[in-house]
Amino acid sequence: MLTRNYPYFKPETAANGDPAPPPLSWTVERTARFEEVDAINVVWHGRYPSYFEDARVGFGQAYGCTYYDFRDAGLVVPVKQMGIDYRGPLRFGQQCRITATLHWSAGARINFSYRIKAMDGEVLTTGYTVQVFLDAEGKVFMFKPEFFAAFCARWEAGTLKPGA
Amino acid sequence: MLTRNYPYFKPETAANGDPAPPPLSWTVERTARFEEVDAINVVWHGRYPSYFEDARVGFGQAYGCTYYDFRDAGLVVPVKQMGIDYRGPLRFGQQCRITATLHWSAGARINFSYRIKAMDGEVLTTGYTVQVFLDAEGKVFMFKPEFFAAFCARWEAGTLKPGA
Amino acid sequence: MLTRNYPYFKPETAANGDPAPPPLSWTVERTARFEEVDAINVVWHGRYPSYFEDARVGFGQAYGCTYYDFRDAGLVVPVKQMGIDYRGPLRFGQQCRITATLHWSAGARINFSYRIKAMDGEVLTTGYTVQVFLDAEGKVFMFKPEFFAAFCARWEAGTLKPGA
Amino acid sequence: MLTRNYPYFKPETAANGDPAPPPLSWTVERTARFEEVDAINVVWHGRYPSYFEDARVGFGQAYGCTYYDFRDAGLVVPVKQMGIDYRGPLRFGQQCRITATLHWSAGARINFSYRIKAMDGEVLTTGYTVQVFLDAEGKVFMFKPEFFAAFCARWEAGTLKPGA
Repeated sequence: MLTRNYPYFKPETAANGDPAPPPLSWTVERTARFEEVDAINVVWHGRYPSYFEDARVGFGQAYGCTYYDFRDAGLVVPVKQMGIDYRGPLRFGQQCRITATLHWSAGARINFSYRIKAMDGEVLTTGYTVQVFLDAEGKVFMFKPEFFAAFCARWEAGTLKPGA
Repeated sequence: MLTRNYPYFKPETAANGDPAPPPLSWTVERTARFEEVDAINVVWHGRYPSYFEDARVGFGQAYGCTYYDFRDAGLVVPVKQMGIDYRGPLRFGQQCRITATLHWSAGARINFSYRIKAMDGEVLTTGYTVQVFLDAEGKVFMFKPEFFAAFCARWEAGTLKPGA
Repeated sequence: MLTRNYPYFKPETAANGDPAPPPLSWTVERTARFEEVDAINVVWHGRYPSYFEDARVGFGQAYGCTYYDFRDAGLVVPVKQMGIDYRGPLRFGQQCRITATLHWSAGARINFSYRIKAMDGEVLTTGYTVQVFLDAEGKVFMFKPEFFAAFCARWEAGTLKPGA
Repeated sequence: MLTRNYPYFKPETAANGDPAPPPLSWTVERTARFEEVDAINVVWHGRYPSYFEDARVGFGQAYGCTYYDFRDAGLVVPVKQMGIDYRGPLRFGQQCRITATLHWSAGARINFSYRIKAMDGEVLTTGYTVQVFLDAEGKVFMFKPEFFAAFCARWEAGTLKPGA
């Protein structure tokens, strides 16, 4: 269930009734570009979906669960809901760390929370996205595709290891 | 108070204890550009903050309450929270109508909800933003600046008329 | 042949040996958005390809020669060369007129020059693009597709009329 | 003098009449983001100014000659002219190397050429920018600011060493 503050998602129950497996995280770094900064000298608020997506793409590569894996299964995974809480600014040339955290869901959902920190650890921005599965006709696909169900099984079993 | 569905904001009480004045709205049109559309052939989800801002800027011009008015009062009005619910896609060359609705708040807040509709009326996307006032030192300004308090007084009195 | 100053293209000879038909133009309007403006308070130089494309898309709709017409003929028309000369700034909220001018070419080329003017007529930016035809395998298509050859024939005959 | 092909700038004469010092280069890496890719599945042509700027910013940090150094000297260095030659596409997730090369100019100019290569060395895109110096009133500054003249002197003397 979605709450309004980071990490936004409450733990769900795993398929077998046990507590949900702990969330999985991956962190990437990014430096604010000149073109991202606005007239008030901070990264314009509308650029943060791009920062979140960097971390989401990095997560997919690290855990073997990418846009291409879904595409090969005949699905796309559009974002259905996004929330962003802006706490502190990012400035031109400033480096930051973006962590994407995947939260267990029994349903056909991909729930990520995000946290952007300055290099000194100060939390600048948090947010979340909810993705669903759509098939080639644009209809919501109500089940986890096979490769993703396998990914979730390894997650439950605690045998997933990120690499890359 | 923020709810999770459009129009996201519950009516507050006006300064004098009466029910809050009804929300104010303004609608602009926009056509999806080729560069906004992604590999799945829909406007990429991260572009919608720009669509919302078009409507917010149009609202400001229509009601005489713009970024420049705040700047002349020594303030900026950054977005502190944003939420977006994506329902249907926008495609290259597709025209849409974006409505920004300002919801009454007694506090030092600017609460907008947004609704993007296709030209046939189908709701494609909804969302909201919460803005606060920051002064020149970057500190939150806890009161409505004079011109905005005057704007709110006319709003309560029902004498505001949009013109663009 | 390409020169370095607006309008960048020298008149070519028409297919039948006569002087080339005069260039065709179309003008669109655009207002600079807040997110396009950078820390020096002007539209960031890298946004101008988007302004040029607005005019190019408007031209296509006006003359019945769009991205979709090429796509239905099995072709895409990527930009192979672009040049931009920046003269004066565009600022947040400023309206401008962008004119795309198509220059006759006997070859399999689409040559556009662009001029961006402030509403008072001051020329702010000029530029050009050269597009080629690529087929489904990504190979350069050396001839004008049928619908475009027909368009060029009407152009030569002087019977083209823009609408929309 | 500007030619039309990479590296676009012909060698000039140094201040003392000798041949110009050889150009200086710096290379950065970048990975194409999902949001940069268009409906034809390639990085949209209008994104390349951002790629060039990444390399220009990296060059500035490596050689101690940044946007902030110019700003502290009371100047900005806007782009006055840009050219781009597109040879091959960049795709989502593809990594590339962008090299910015500064060419000697006796005048008050900053002349960069750029080359984007795939990781296998294939040249994907080339281009150039010409920047001038503008003072606080927006007037063209006809001389090199002191710190930049010092930079050029070390360049001529062959004592510049990049470090990042």
